[in-house]
Amino acid sequence: MKMNAYVAGVGMTPFGKHLDKTLKALAGQAITAALRDAGLQAGDLQAAWMGNAAAGVTVGQEMIRGQVALRELGIGRIPVVNVENACASSSTALQQACAMVTAGLYDVVLACGSEKLFHEDKLRSMGAFSSAVDVEDPRGALKVLEEMARAAGESFDATGAGEKRSVFMDIYSLMAKKHMKRYGSTKEHFAMVTAKNSFHGSMNPRAQFRDEMTVQQVLDARTIIEPLTLPMCSPIGDGAAAVVLVSERKARELGLRNPVRILASALVSGWDFEREGESVGALAAQQAYEAAGLGPRDLSCVELHDASAPSEIVAYEYLGLCAEGEGKSLIESGATRLGGRIPVNTSGGLLRKGHPVGATGCAQIVELTEQLQGRSGQRQVEGARIALAHNGGGAIGLDAAATVVTILSREG
Amino acid sequence: MKMNAYVAGVGMTPFGKHLDKTLKALAGQAITAALRDAGLQAGDLQAAWMGNAAAGVTVGQEMIRGQVALRELGIGRIPVVNVENACASSSTALQQACAMVTAGLYDVVLACGSEKLFHEDKLRSMGAFSSAVDVEDPRGALKVLEEMARAAGESFDATGAGEKRSVFMDIYSLMAKKHMKRYGSTKEHFAMVTAKNSFHGSMNPRAQFRDEMTVQQVLDARTIIEPLTLPMCSPIGDGAAAVVLVSERKARELGLRNPVRILASALVSGWDFEREGESVGALAAQQAYEAAGLGPRDLSCVELHDASAPSEIVAYEYLGLCAEGEGKSLIESGATRLGGRIPVNTSGGLLRKGHPVGATGCAQIVELTEQLQGRSGQRQVEGARIALAHNGGGAIGLDAAATVVTILSREG
Repeated sequence: MKMNAYVAGVGMTPFGKHLDKTLKALAGQAITAALRDAGLQAGDLQAAWMGNAAAGVTVGQEMIRGQVALRELGIGRIPVVNVENACASSSTALQQACAMVTAGLYDVVLACGSEKLFHEDKLRSMGAFSSAVDVEDPRGALKVLEEMARAAGESFDATGAGEKRSVFMDIYSLMAKKHMKRYGSTKEHFAMVTAKNSFHGSMNPRAQFRDEMTVQQVLDARTIIEPLTLPMCSPIGDGAAAVVLVSERKARELGLRNPVRILASALVSGWDFEREGESVGALAAQQAYEAAGLGPRDLSCVELHDASAPSEIVAYEYLGLCAEGEGKSLIESGATRLGGRIPVNTSGGLLRKGHPVGATGCAQIVELTEQLQGRSGQRQVEGARIALAHNGGGAIGLDAAATVVTILSREG
Repeated sequence: MKMNAYVAGVGMTPFGKHLDKTLKALAGQAITAALRDAGLQAGDLQAAWMGNAAAGVTVGQEMIRGQVALRELGIGRIPVVNVENACASSSTALQQACAMVTAGLYDVVLACGSEKLFHEDKLRSMGAFSSAVDVEDPRGALKVLEEMARAAGESFDATGAGEKRSVFMDIYSLMAKKHMKRYGSTKEHFAMVTAKNSFHGSMNPRAQFRDEMTVQQVLDARTIIEPLTLPMCSPIGDGAAAVVLVSERKARELGLRNPVRILASALVSGWDFEREGESVGALAAQQAYEAAGLGPRDLSCVELHDASAPSEIVAYEYLGLCAEGEGKSLIESGATRLGGRIPVNTSGGLLRKGHPVGATGCAQIVELTEQLQGRSGQRQVEGARIALAHNGGGAIGLDAAATVVTILSREG
C-alpha cells in the first residue's frame, strides 16, 4: 500500500532479560522515549495500535494490553487497538497506523510493540512460540514438519522441539537444508551472517548481545538443530519499541528536522506458498516496491527478519538484494556489512539486538529512522536515503503467516 | 468516526457449547455464511480483521488466529489483522474494517469474531476473563475492587471470584450496588431485564438459552454474588460471527437488495472515568451520535452489552435511551421489549443469546442487519430504520477498557 506518513519520533528499551520490569513498564519506557523524541505530549496522541504476541501465554495478559500500558502514561479515551501477528505484530500495528494517517483519519498516532518472553519456567517461554503455529491442526506442528521433511528427502529429528528450543528453529532447520541442497549454501555462510550481525550489534548499546564473534566461534558453538548452532538462532528476549507517526500536514506544522517518511507498507498473510513456488516475503516486497515506485537497487540499508542466520540469506534473495541462489555470494562479498554496498541489520538484527517478538517490527523502524536521520553513531550508514524493513511472523508450513515490508525515505 | 460502508452479508454460528468444534471451524462456519449471504466468494475479500479475546488462555492459540481460520477457507495473501479488545474485540475489528473501507482503501473486507471459552477445566475458562483486566497490577483486580467498595461504603466479599465466577461479575455487582443506592433501582428491575431478554431469546434459533423466564424465576435462581442471580449473568459460550463490508461503489455494483449502511462507529478506550463522573459508554455514544448526525430518539432498535442484567439498565442511561437514573422506569414501562418504543436486545442479548466474548461485537451487527432488512421473523421490529450496537470490553476499574458504539441505517 502506498503510504504517506511521517515518523515524528522513535524510542525503544534495550532488548534483553527484564525480569524486574512488567510488560506495561517496558511499553511505557519506549512510548515515553518516542514522545520525547517527537517533542509531543501523551495528550497529543489521537489513536494507538499496540502489538504484542505472547502475553496471554507468558504473563496471562490478553485482550487489553495496550490500554493497561497507556493508562500508566495518562493516556485514555482515544481508540486503542491491540494487534497480533506473531513476530510481525508491531509492524502490523505500524502498517495499520500508517494506513489510517495516510487516509487522513488522524494526524498524530502511536504504533508500539512490547514483549516479555523470559519466564522462570522455560517451558512457558517455549510455549509462547508454539502458540504462533496452528495449534488446532490435529497433526501438530512437528508432524507437519516431519511430513515436509520426508517429502523433501530430508532427515528430521523433532527431539527437544518446543522444550529445549522453539519449534521455529525446527522450521528454520528444514528451510536451511532445502537452501543448502538447492543452492549450495553452507553452514559457513550462515555463520558469516551471525559474525557480521555480531559486529553490528557490538556497536549498538540497546543490543542484547554486544560481543563480536568470529565465523569460527559461531561454527564451534553448541548445535541446537542441524545446521543451526546457538548463535545462529535469535534469542529469547524482553523489550519494547514505539513509533510516533504524523500526517504530512502535522509534519509541516511541527517543522520536523530531518523528516523521515514512510512511502509504502505491505502486509501479506501466509499461504501454502512453499507448494506453489511463491513466498510471502517475495510477495510483500514486490507490493512494497511497486507502491513506493522503487526497487532494491535504490536501498541504502535494510533491517530484515534474521530469526535464524539462514533466514537472512534466504531473505536477501526474495527481497531482491541479489538473484535467487546468490545469497551465499552476497554474504561472502561483504556487501551487507557496514561499509558495504547494502548494509543489512546494522542494529545487530534479531540475532544480536534480540527478538522480543511483538517488539521487533517497531524496533526495526527505530533503527532505520535513526539511520536515515544520521544519528546511528559508529554504525551509521553514510548518506542513507532509502531504507527497507522486513518483518515476518508465525508459520503456515515453512513460510511466515504474516509478513510486513515497509519502505522509508529521508526527506529534504 | 463518520463512516460510509455497506453490510453486504452477515453470518454466525449458533452460540453455545461447542466442545466438538475448533476455534477455526467456528470462524469458518460464520465466514462461509456471511460470504454466501453477500453472494461473494472467498477470493473477493481484500483484507480481514479477526477478533478473538482469549484463545491464548483457552486453547493456546495466539498471534495468527485469523490466518489459521482463513486458510481453511482457501483465503491467503491478503492483509489479515488479528485484533483484541476483550469483549469488544470483534466490534473493534469491524470498526477498523469500516474505517479502511470508508477511507477508500478497500472495496470488500471481512470482520469476524470467534471464541471458544468452554473448557473441561473450568478454571481455564475463568482464567480467560481474568486476562481482561490489568494482570500486572500488584494489588490484583480483587484488591482494586475491595478498595473501590470501601471508598463507596459497600460491602464486598471476593470469595469465589475467578474460580466459581468470572471476576467481571464482581465488577458488575459493585456497579449494580452503586446504581441501586444512587437511583433506587432494585433486584426486581434487574430480573425484569433478564425476563425480557429471555422472551426475545426464546424466538432466536441461534440463542444459547431458548427458555423464557419470569421475573420471579430469575429472582429465585441461585445467587452468584449479590445482587446477581445466575440468569442475571451472561454465560460462558463458544461461537463466531462474521460481517462482509463493501464500499459504496461496490454496493452499487453488487446491486444490494435492502442495503444496510454503517453511518458511524466510535471506539473509545477506558480511563479512570468512574473517578471523573464520565463513562466510556457515554463518550462513545456521544461520538457516534455526533458522527451520524442523529440522536437516541431516532433509533428503532438497540443491541447493547448486557454482560449482566444491571449493565443493561446502566447502559440505557449512558446511551441516552432515557435520562440518568431513569433506567429502572424504562425497563418497567416495557418500552425496551419487542413491540415497545425502543426494543433492546431482540437477539436475547448477551444474557440469553450468549457471550462468546470475541464474537459478540459482530453478532450484534448480524442481529441489527437482519432487523433493518426485515428478516428477523417472530422477533422483527416493525419498520426498523436506524439501529445502534454497543459493545464494551475488559475493565479498568469499574468501567470498560474499550467500548465501540456503531450506528447503522436501512437505505432505500
